[in-house]
Amino acid sequence: MKKTDLLIIGGSAAGVTASITARKHNKDVKITVVRKEKEVVIPCGIPYMYGTLEDPTKNLIPDNLLLSKNIEIVVDEVKSLNRDEKTVTLSKGEKVSYEKLILATGSLPAVPPIPGINLKNVFTVRKDLSYLLGLVDALKKAKNVVVIGGGFIGVEFADEFVKRGLNVTIVEILPCCLQLAYDEDFCKLAEKKLIERGVKLKTNNKVEEIVGNGKVEKVRLSSGEILEADLVLVGVGVKPNIELAKNAGLKIGEQGGIWVDEYMRTSDENIFAVGDCAEKYSFFTKKPTALRLASITAREARIAGVNVFGLKRKNIGVIGCFSTIIGDLALGVAGLTERLAKELGFNFVVGMAVAPDKHPGVMPGCKEMRVKLLFEKDSKILIGGQIAGGVTTGEVTNIIASLVEKKTTAEEVATFQYGTHPALTSSPVTYQIAEAAEDALTKL
Amino acid sequence: MKKTDLLIIGGSAAGVTASITARKHNKDVKITVVRKEKEVVIPCGIPYMYGTLEDPTKNLIPDNLLLSKNIEIVVDEVKSLNRDEKTVTLSKGEKVSYEKLILATGSLPAVPPIPGINLKNVFTVRKDLSYLLGLVDALKKAKNVVVIGGGFIGVEFADEFVKRGLNVTIVEILPCCLQLAYDEDFCKLAEKKLIERGVKLKTNNKVEEIVGNGKVEKVRLSSGEILEADLVLVGVGVKPNIELAKNAGLKIGEQGGIWVDEYMRTSDENIFAVGDCAEKYSFFTKKPTALRLASITAREARIAGVNVFGLKRKNIGVIGCFSTIIGDLALGVAGLTERLAKELGFNFVVGMAVAPDKHPGVMPGCKEMRVKLLFEKDSKILIGGQIAGGVTTGEVTNIIASLVEKKTTAEEVATFQYGTHPALTSSPVTYQIAEAAEDALTKL
Repeated sequence: MKKTDLLIIGGSAAGVTASITARKHNKDVKITVVRKEKEVVIPCGIPYMYGTLEDPTKNLIPDNLLLSKNIEIVVDEVKSLNRDEKTVTLSKGEKVSYEKLILATGSLPAVPPIPGINLKNVFTVRKDLSYLLGLVDALKKAKNVVVIGGGFIGVEFADEFVKRGLNVTIVEILPCCLQLAYDEDFCKLAEKKLIERGVKLKTNNKVEEIVGNGKVEKVRLSSGEILEADLVLVGVGVKPNIELAKNAGLKIGEQGGIWVDEYMRTSDENIFAVGDCAEKYSFFTKKPTALRLASITAREARIAGVNVFGLKRKNIGVIGCFSTIIGDLALGVAGLTERLAKELGFNFVVGMAVAPDKHPGVMPGCKEMRVKLLFEKDSKILIGGQIAGGVTTGEVTNIIASLVEKKTTAEEVATFQYGTHPALTSSPVTYQIAEAAEDALTKL
Repeated sequence: MKKTDLLIIGGSAAGVTASITARKHNKDVKITVVRKEKEVVIPCGIPYMYGTLEDPTKNLIPDNLLLSKNIEIVVDEVKSLNRDEKTVTLSKGEKVSYEKLILATGSLPAVPPIPGINLKNVFTVRKDLSYLLGLVDALKKAKNVVVIGGGFIGVEFADEFVKRGLNVTIVEILPCCLQLAYDEDFCKLAEKKLIERGVKLKTNNKVEEIVGNGKVEKVRLSSGEILEADLVLVGVGVKPNIELAKNAGLKIGEQGGIWVDEYMRTSDENIFAVGDCAEKYSFFTKKPTALRLASITAREARIAGVNVFGLKRKNIGVIGCFSTIIGDLALGVAGLTERLAKELGFNFVVGMAVAPDKHPGVMPGCKEMRVKLLFEKDSKILIGGQIAGGVTTGEVTNIIASLVEKKTTAEEVATFQYGTHPALTSSPVTYQIAEAAEDALTKL
């Protein structure tokens, strides 16, 4: 029987980061990653396989990240987990024994129960290279594409599809695209840009049926409208892949992920869980949250990767920090939106600032950047921010996340220390994060 | 006699930000800015008037920033300050009385005592539009340009000059360009890029004489070498413009700036000083420091602009956060470099991380980004960082600055919450700030 000190099940962002982290801090232990996939696609890069990347087969996490650090990769499927024996069984019955185990089994695309969902040319977002390359081929013959779901995945796919000259329609059940991520003012900016890029939007609407003879031909909406479609992309979210954990009797959380404590331990102290398969807790409320992102995954993996050999790091809960780009408009969010803050019962004020993202505004490539910040009214602590701007938006979002994590007050945000450069940032005079805090302070 | 509640002397980044901030928090007071210049150039944008900007006359701070907020602009020179009377006297003898005064008189370019420094076609970096446009004209006839000083200003001008096809040589007295800002490993990256761009470097070298008959023709170096030159640009730093304050008997600090307390008050409690004219104190040592940047200015102005009508904000000292770009290589620094940390007697460890700034690495426009972080050994607190990368470098520098300001430990940096996106940031697995902290932790 194969023996390993640390066994990790899953080879995507969670498994890779957990194993690398464990190796960094433990030079001499044996670390083994078991994964199903021969090649591992970069999950967030999947939409970009369909327009931006010249070669879609290049959207891979290189194995050398692990191999160069003396981490063994076993390409196989784990069929069962025996916690008493501390072993797992692979597809052909071979067993592997572990001292410590990290479950990084990820998530599976949610598949809504729509009639016709199994027709040919209906695709979900499976993290499987050959399946995803199948979508590349199908797109070559497509003309009319319907995207079900106007969240991040749906919007990013739609934006890639229009780059190919396709006729693309997003069908979204909520009143706005991206509504679970941003407030309406930012969703409207996104929708304006999508429309400008040629994407058609059917919001407040639902796909009732996918119609076709063997393969998709039309899509019928709840509004009664019928859309021509030779390809459908379903992007309505993910569900944690917990089958193995459940069968092994591990505790499952309220939001359907594997229950974990603040050290990322499951209900079995020798087993940790990280990434999409693990339950998430809000930084703000400490209650379970449904948010699943590769960046959260990596952070959890850094916590578990250290803790497997001695509890050192605690998970303080998920702030929620992510960004996207539609054409040349990037959008970011960190922490709570107005909608979410209201739902959670926060009393808050909002500060806004808009200015060019370079200075002077006539610098080449300059874009307008809009920053909105939310501060809790009594403590004056920053609880969230949203950004719309150019290519620096992702990192500006991360500045806000770090200020949220450190419970920074509006006074501190207004005078926080940043550097500026004409070609790289806004002007020191109009730097949006500081200015939005100043704006909020006039109302606090 | 003209009367105003708040008088601000100086209309550049310091005066503008101070007056806007004061207005935001005080709707009904009378605010007056007196400045010498008819039009105010954006100081950090000056190098970009010579290559990047199509129209160099557009590098201006718009007056409307003030006028739209009911802040009066008086274009005149303040000749003297009478603290007992609480008045200033303008060029034609007219007096203006104030309740509160903010000095934002800025700095003047340092002029080294080199023989020939007064020859025609020797330029300093004066914040004066017509003078700076004179340099545009002179460049049109120039072929061989010598830049004295390989700091930020010198390097940025040199990089712009090569865009015009000029033969450009930087003469720097220290062993490396940018040596006061970065450690040698980062300076070497900058120098490699400068050379690749066609800039010639004469480091460990000094201009002994500028030679010419009426106008510059040659430059003689300490190495004995003689360079052909029809234009010389002097960028060897600035000195605080404190004449008015000195004549009025205000206390002057060790580093030559107007002495200020943590509220930005001068030795006269009705007079504040901000920006390049004011003394700076280090965040790390609380001792005077020579660093002068527009971003520091804006922050001080936000402190003083509030405090003039009631002391609320404290200056916790300068971290030092700035960035630049040479060709397509951006460089940033926040807090202490190894060199500075050693000088100050810090015991520290260094963490490094290098990875693509998008993911996968084949995303269009992807650049390598290198991050170096310094942590104090006992407390494990982050004390500085340096970055070399693409266009997001400026904002990544600002993330590090915010983590330094919040005294974040290496464990906290390794698990800080960031968001990622294929087109906007590094991969969640290799995100450099977290990875550099992990690297440091293996040595702590």
